[in-house]
Amino acid sequence: MIGARGAISTCVAYGLSGLRQGLLEPVGLTTECSPLNRMDLAGIDAIVLGGHEIAEAGSTAVAGELVRAGVLPAEVVAAGSGDAAAFDASIRPGILDLAEVGRADLDPAAASMGGASPRAKVDRLREDIESFRRETGVGRVVVVYLASAEPAIEESPHWNDLAAFEKALDGEGEFPASSLYAYSALTAGCPFVNFTPNHGSSIEALRQLAIERGLPHCGNDGKTGETLLKTALAPMFQKRALRVLAWQGYNMLGNRDGETLRDPLRRAKKCRNKDAPLHQILGDDRTHTQVGIDFVPSLHDWKTAMDFVHFEGFLGAKMSLQFTWAGSDSALAAPLVIDLVRLAEFAARKGESGEMPQTACFFKSPLAGGSHDFHEQHRELVKYALKHAT
Amino acid sequence: MIGARGAISTCVAYGLSGLRQGLLEPVGLTTECSPLNRMDLAGIDAIVLGGHEIAEAGSTAVAGELVRAGVLPAEVVAAGSGDAAAFDASIRPGILDLAEVGRADLDPAAASMGGASPRAKVDRLREDIESFRRETGVGRVVVVYLASAEPAIEESPHWNDLAAFEKALDGEGEFPASSLYAYSALTAGCPFVNFTPNHGSSIEALRQLAIERGLPHCGNDGKTGETLLKTALAPMFQKRALRVLAWQGYNMLGNRDGETLRDPLRRAKKCRNKDAPLHQILGDDRTHTQVGIDFVPSLHDWKTAMDFVHFEGFLGAKMSLQFTWAGSDSALAAPLVIDLVRLAEFAARKGESGEMPQTACFFKSPLAGGSHDFHEQHRELVKYALKHAT
Amino acid sequence: MIGARGAISTCVAYGLSGLRQGLLEPVGLTTECSPLNRMDLAGIDAIVLGGHEIAEAGSTAVAGELVRAGVLPAEVVAAGSGDAAAFDASIRPGILDLAEVGRADLDPAAASMGGASPRAKVDRLREDIESFRRETGVGRVVVVYLASAEPAIEESPHWNDLAAFEKALDGEGEFPASSLYAYSALTAGCPFVNFTPNHGSSIEALRQLAIERGLPHCGNDGKTGETLLKTALAPMFQKRALRVLAWQGYNMLGNRDGETLRDPLRRAKKCRNKDAPLHQILGDDRTHTQVGIDFVPSLHDWKTAMDFVHFEGFLGAKMSLQFTWAGSDSALAAPLVIDLVRLAEFAARKGESGEMPQTACFFKSPLAGGSHDFHEQHRELVKYALKHAT
Amino acid sequence: MIGARGAISTCVAYGLSGLRQGLLEPVGLTTECSPLNRMDLAGIDAIVLGGHEIAEAGSTAVAGELVRAGVLPAEVVAAGSGDAAAFDASIRPGILDLAEVGRADLDPAAASMGGASPRAKVDRLREDIESFRRETGVGRVVVVYLASAEPAIEESPHWNDLAAFEKALDGEGEFPASSLYAYSALTAGCPFVNFTPNHGSSIEALRQLAIERGLPHCGNDGKTGETLLKTALAPMFQKRALRVLAWQGYNMLGNRDGETLRDPLRRAKKCRNKDAPLHQILGDDRTHTQVGIDFVPSLHDWKTAMDFVHFEGFLGAKMSLQFTWAGSDSALAAPLVIDLVRLAEFAARKGESGEMPQTACFFKSPLAGGSHDFHEQHRELVKYALKHAT
Repeated sequence: MIGARGAISTCVAYGLSGLRQGLLEPVGLTTECSPLNRMDLAGIDAIVLGGHEIAEAGSTAVAGELVRAGVLPAEVVAAGSGDAAAFDASIRPGILDLAEVGRADLDPAAASMGGASPRAKVDRLREDIESFRRETGVGRVVVVYLASAEPAIEESPHWNDLAAFEKALDGEGEFPASSLYAYSALTAGCPFVNFTPNHGSSIEALRQLAIERGLPHCGNDGKTGETLLKTALAPMFQKRALRVLAWQGYNMLGNRDGETLRDPLRRAKKCRNKDAPLHQILGDDRTHTQVGIDFVPSLHDWKTAMDFVHFEGFLGAKMSLQFTWAGSDSALAAPLVIDLVRLAEFAARKGESGEMPQTACFFKSPLAGGSHDFHEQHRELVKYALKHAT
Repeated sequence: MIGARGAISTCVAYGLSGLRQGLLEPVGLTTECSPLNRMDLAGIDAIVLGGHEIAEAGSTAVAGELVRAGVLPAEVVAAGSGDAAAFDASIRPGILDLAEVGRADLDPAAASMGGASPRAKVDRLREDIESFRRETGVGRVVVVYLASAEPAIEESPHWNDLAAFEKALDGEGEFPASSLYAYSALTAGCPFVNFTPNHGSSIEALRQLAIERGLPHCGNDGKTGETLLKTALAPMFQKRALRVLAWQGYNMLGNRDGETLRDPLRRAKKCRNKDAPLHQILGDDRTHTQVGIDFVPSLHDWKTAMDFVHFEGFLGAKMSLQFTWAGSDSALAAPLVIDLVRLAEFAARKGESGEMPQTACFFKSPLAGGSHDFHEQHRELVKYALKHAT
Repeated sequence: MIGARGAISTCVAYGLSGLRQGLLEPVGLTTECSPLNRMDLAGIDAIVLGGHEIAEAGSTAVAGELVRAGVLPAEVVAAGSGDAAAFDASIRPGILDLAEVGRADLDPAAASMGGASPRAKVDRLREDIESFRRETGVGRVVVVYLASAEPAIEESPHWNDLAAFEKALDGEGEFPASSLYAYSALTAGCPFVNFTPNHGSSIEALRQLAIERGLPHCGNDGKTGETLLKTALAPMFQKRALRVLAWQGYNMLGNRDGETLRDPLRRAKKCRNKDAPLHQILGDDRTHTQVGIDFVPSLHDWKTAMDFVHFEGFLGAKMSLQFTWAGSDSALAAPLVIDLVRLAEFAARKGESGEMPQTACFFKSPLAGGSHDFHEQHRELVKYALKHAT
Repeated sequence: MIGARGAISTCVAYGLSGLRQGLLEPVGLTTECSPLNRMDLAGIDAIVLGGHEIAEAGSTAVAGELVRAGVLPAEVVAAGSGDAAAFDASIRPGILDLAEVGRADLDPAAASMGGASPRAKVDRLREDIESFRRETGVGRVVVVYLASAEPAIEESPHWNDLAAFEKALDGEGEFPASSLYAYSALTAGCPFVNFTPNHGSSIEALRQLAIERGLPHCGNDGKTGETLLKTALAPMFQKRALRVLAWQGYNMLGNRDGETLRDPLRRAKKCRNKDAPLHQILGDDRTHTQVGIDFVPSLHDWKTAMDFVHFEGFLGAKMSLQFTWAGSDSALAAPLVIDLVRLAEFAARKGESGEMPQTACFFKSPLAGGSHDFHEQHRELVKYALKHAT
């Protein structure tokens, strides 16, 4: 897990520990439900965690905050302290994206890599992955990208071609951290899952790399809350021929993600990912849509979204639907991460390569494209599961 | 249309008139959208309206109220006055259900039929249908039941068998008005659509009758608002393995329907229809659900529903979704009525007989059973349309 | 505290402990704010807790539930275990109200008093109070009634006269538990605070008793959540000459209080208390109002209220306000209990007797009557505080 | 009325007409309620309307839009056509603020004044007022500023002193239109009411002018919707010692005002006015507050605000209040305009001069300062009314 001491990774770690100890039920895990539970997926017990992280704060501090916020149950944290310590010990210093250089809370080891060449960074990351594989003896490593949103950056010409990309790695140029992580993972033979809005891992060059190496990869941007709801609801309007006049979405969040997204450059990509599905589903260019993301520190991990949908029915009658969604960002994301790791491992085992269309329902902006209608996306997953069910 | 001077019928009448004159767009009409618009359905222009009604108030008064309530546009009413007068002239006195005897605003002609025998009522209704067919020269009559909710009544033994039902018609016993209307329609060779929660038209005896006569029929209880939303949303929780702990639904409405539903006996059936789909979709017996319907006169036709969904995610984290739906009850229902009339006419033309599973997405409690998941129901309709598309 | 192992009492106990240890800030305590903090009120440190309780469950179990529900912070419970144990040891068996006889979770000692005569019960309660006073050496005992809602009962003739009431105590008749507690407290020389909707402590006979003994008393029904909000908001409509057409209030709660209120008889009084203020403030008989209380177990202590206000403005334009309030019932009530104990102790010290009009802002149905406008009520409290400020 | 063909002015005109004809009740008019109705205010029948406007569109077009939007009743518009025509005929071309130069829909006569000197503009406006007074024979003219929000501009040194201001009028410099209107009104002997966020009419120089001429004036920014609600609700938190952690306000509006406020410079002042009261009332610097205003065209005049209040109670428990307000912007503002005109006329008649503290409850940012607590502000108005009641 890249971003291994963030809130999501912490919930993944304690969640797996709690599941194994029978302290938690597998609520939120699609892979534990029919028909996915009839596939030969890796067992919950078989998953071994490792990761990269640039921040200094230990997992214990993050877990403490999540307990106080009412996300992690105190008894799960107490019972999982051994597992957590083992995970924590395996975390290695990550690499910085440009905007993170100079942040106050950096792990000095991560900070010291700031000046290294792209090639040096990539080599170090790959070595980390390989030594993790050796030390743990796991059969397959899946890399999941869970770090903060990067600033939206302009595409470079060498992004569109693998050879050009590799050549540029040997130069002095700047690369988004997400591109370097994805490159390292794929060249180390690992499927790659991008749970963030960062575009750097889904550039054409890396798509070519995945095909070349025969590896599956998927992304982008986990569909956990307001966008999930939107893509589950908007089809209803379209199917009933109701005309959506306006869909305003106001997102409030108080965690590190929210803080990062105060930066308009970092927010831009995320807002696009949250907004685009509506237009595709509704198929009406006149629909006025807007997505806001605001940082409200007191909410901590509890993302609260207030949406207002203005629509027209028969006779020109104007009607409205309004909803408020209040959910723990990390508790919503963590089970999807576990589901995706299991699905990516399975796909790699089956020799699938390239984008994983069966995972579209997990993402705001699915790598393989297709419909944003959550129900259609989920049907594709079910079809895939039935094909592979035993 | 049974209940021909009610708010829904009035919206159907002015809506069709407005569509023909190009004053309205076909918003809300599924049959005007792809792929249903590629079926050989009866044209909007080909529909001729007639009906039964027990209340005295003229359609003009009802239309005036709907204009003041902001449902019907004044210009559509002005331009449709000729069509409305023609429709109004064709309306004939209906028959009363038990609880309506003695109501203050009854059409004296309807009231005077109160004491007639079931057989006499049925004969008169059938004659009305046949003379409407003769006078208008329409190719096929479809009967749509839009009257008020009847009190929930106990099933009689003769409901389960057509021969027993017909024998009882000759006796002195009481029948729900909905049974008599459905019997008359089917024996007059007309497909029957039950848009209300009334159970009387879907008893076993009448299902046998539909098969015997080779006629299609469908119902029950139009899925227009809160239940539509519920059955579009609940599948999201199930598909994401989120555990719904409680789903509380509070419906407020101010029209005649709302007033009628103040009677707990009439409300009971409706609440069951609104509640049952959740349990089927979520498949979890522990979910605490509740549906309330309250009469709030100032809302008039604007049905407002406030729902609170409490759910559990990964790690036992408790989250919530809350929504408020504010829509015009009649403007939501009227296009579904037009869609159903066209689909029933089409089915009859194609020689279909019995329940119409393709119409499940239009009903809270579909006659043919099946999934309550709106998206699955809609997919069945699309499949049917594609099969018949030209 | 009567109901000493309930959620409110538990929050009072741990809250006082946390305040003394500096673990909590005095949020929610009006008596710690200006100008009330300039009165010579009893110090937080000077309060010693005792109580009566009929249920068997220990305070620790209740505290554990409140920690899991996210109401009580785990560290406050850990640090307060000594204080809690001392409080718990001082709790004595209470007396049952009629409807509680036969409940499963009763303290056997409380259950065994079920058959005793009213006089015997009263004598035992008074003895308990007096021995608590002796043992703790406190200067003054204030009795706060925090038990469950009693069923609404019909008034008896002997309620209206102290002599008749006392005579009846010697008979075999039934008395609401709240009357017996209030009688015991007042005859033991203690001010009495009724935080519940129970009417038994505010009958005419007991009002006479308070005057006769020169003791202050106050009630009824703590104004903690939705009613607080209503009485803070409704004056805005009245002051702006906006006409409230309808005010629908839907309350959902999941604690023992909610369970008790499933009983329609117990709910009736509470709903009246929650509804009456609106009519007085708005002064418009045509306003349609409704208050519902529903038990939603998963909410536990988190009372959630959804209100819909439909109003008319200039030109007859119909507008709406809708709000959702989500608060911990016990965390909202506990500081009011502490405030009221301090104000009752102060009033007794100053020789006040009878109803305490200065406390109206704390109650849904103030004993002394007067305006329900929260802002006017609060102004009276401020005036009182300024008069007594040092 | 400056902005005489805007939605508010149109509602004032038809509203007065409807009141006179008995078609409307005085809902929303504080001056028609006790105790203000016991003051010797100018009668509804005595008010004669006139105005300035820069846009070309006739009042009839605006009224038609407001009928379609469900704000103005069709029958009031029909019955008021004579009054409206008379008002329309009396409207004269207004002057542009800087940012309006070049707008597409300008009245050519207004556009042609664009290049005139400040002094020439002022002279013309004053002449218009004086000829209106002569032609109508009214006893007193009150000028109400209802034009669009101006861009926030930097203060000039000559704003702080009347002599400097008047000297600058003879130069070539730029003045906010609001300053020129206010100067013209006051020098024509008219009380001035600023219903907009525009600061230009409340600069020090013009405050001096009002005193010098012995005229009352008031403003700024009518408190009609979300801010009204905020200042009615926030005191509840403060009085109950509840700590507001965050107050997020999202305003959506679709009228010309909303379109104008898309300009961040024009929005800035309005947002400040909407935000500042909270901090003053809550008295807590740590409260995180945010106010957004978004243009949602389909809403037309129906301003919809969604607010989220996150607060902390006793024991550190985090709670929330969330509300949605949906009201017609113009129907909320129009009665306040009528109230303010009557109060300004009364104040002028009584010889009051300078700011009118009794009107604070009508404004987001009252000229005379003082508390933002709506209930306190209203109490001041009641005190004033009682002093002058007959």
